[in-house]
Amino acid sequence: MKGKITRKHIVEMADRLFYQRGYEHTSLADIADFVQISKGNFYYHFKSKDEILAAVIQLRLENTRNMLMQWEDEGEKPEDRIKSFIHILITNQVDIKMYGCPVGTLCTELTKLNHASKAEANELLTLFRTWLSRQFVLLGLEADADELALHLLARSQGVATLAQAFQDEEFIKHEVEQMCDWLSCKASARQPAHETGVGP
Amino acid sequence: MKGKITRKHIVEMADRLFYQRGYEHTSLADIADFVQISKGNFYYHFKSKDEILAAVIQLRLENTRNMLMQWEDEGEKPEDRIKSFIHILITNQVDIKMYGCPVGTLCTELTKLNHASKAEANELLTLFRTWLSRQFVLLGLEADADELALHLLARSQGVATLAQAFQDEEFIKHEVEQMCDWLSCKASARQPAHETGVGP
Repeated sequence: MKGKITRKHIVEMADRLFYQRGYEHTSLADIADFVQISKGNFYYHFKSKDEILAAVIQLRLENTRNMLMQWEDEGEKPEDRIKSFIHILITNQVDIKMYGCPVGTLCTELTKLNHASKAEANELLTLFRTWLSRQFVLLGLEADADELALHLLARSQGVATLAQAFQDEEFIKHEVEQMCDWLSCKASARQPAHETGVGP
Repeated sequence: MKGKITRKHIVEMADRLFYQRGYEHTSLADIADFVQISKGNFYYHFKSKDEILAAVIQLRLENTRNMLMQWEDEGEKPEDRIKSFIHILITNQVDIKMYGCPVGTLCTELTKLNHASKAEANELLTLFRTWLSRQFVLLGLEADADELALHLLARSQGVATLAQAFQDEEFIKHEVEQMCDWLSCKASARQPAHETGVGP
């Protein structure tokens, strides 16, 4: 049991360091120092940084799935759930202004490194894409659901990149409002066709 | 003269490597190997990777200024010039799908590293921001010019991030069309007020 807790603790600390400093810049020794356990205990759990990265990505996938399920439980309408996605830019703005989006920046870095785990990291983006797409389907926008999901995901990524560069809270707030307006517009646009039974 | 050419060649090669592999992942030895000159000659020009990074950022700033001037010369109307900006996503899509946006990914990486040159790298984004903002002013959208510039810059960054993750050309094309539609909509929306003299 204690070993399991230690392992989880290492992965959580590595997750934080990879996010804050970047994967390449974080050494195995940095993680061991940060976790504050003996080198022996540390290396019992993980032999390489790649192994830790794989565990970090699994942890993030698990956390993301839980977050998406929570948004689904909390939001009665698909529009509310999509708004929960849009609002993470505000909820996490302190971190985002310092380190960017944890998902986008990891995917970008691993793709540049041509790292063996890049496909697994991209799965994180795919989780959001698939989930958003499903919400747009529920909203009655089947035909464009994936396109709308990608569009919103891209806007959210772009806001995170500029938030980190310009450190501008007003900008984040304004863009979040614009995304919510865009969503309302999309949600109401499909209603006439839906209600009058026009279309396929 | 020969020394100047060699120096410029080193900076261009480093620029390419930093873009393709990331700054942190590229060593001074990698650059020296890539340039294929003697170590002595190489170290005569640059003593550290930080020095090369500073020169790379200066080169990028210079190239960006030239590109913006060219767009300004080529595009008669501000709307055409802004379209030149939007279309770099298509012009450079082969590189973008592999390595993301050269500006956005460098700024993100240096901010995470808390690197001394991060402010200089952010100047690259500021160049685009200021230039786009000026075009929106010329378009008659003074009141929101900076906001519109940031919005477009964010959308462009987001498309680059997802293009790298999903390798999807159709997505890039579709988003570029949407940005052009958005621009036309903004450009025509201001005309009534402008032409009838309504507003401040």
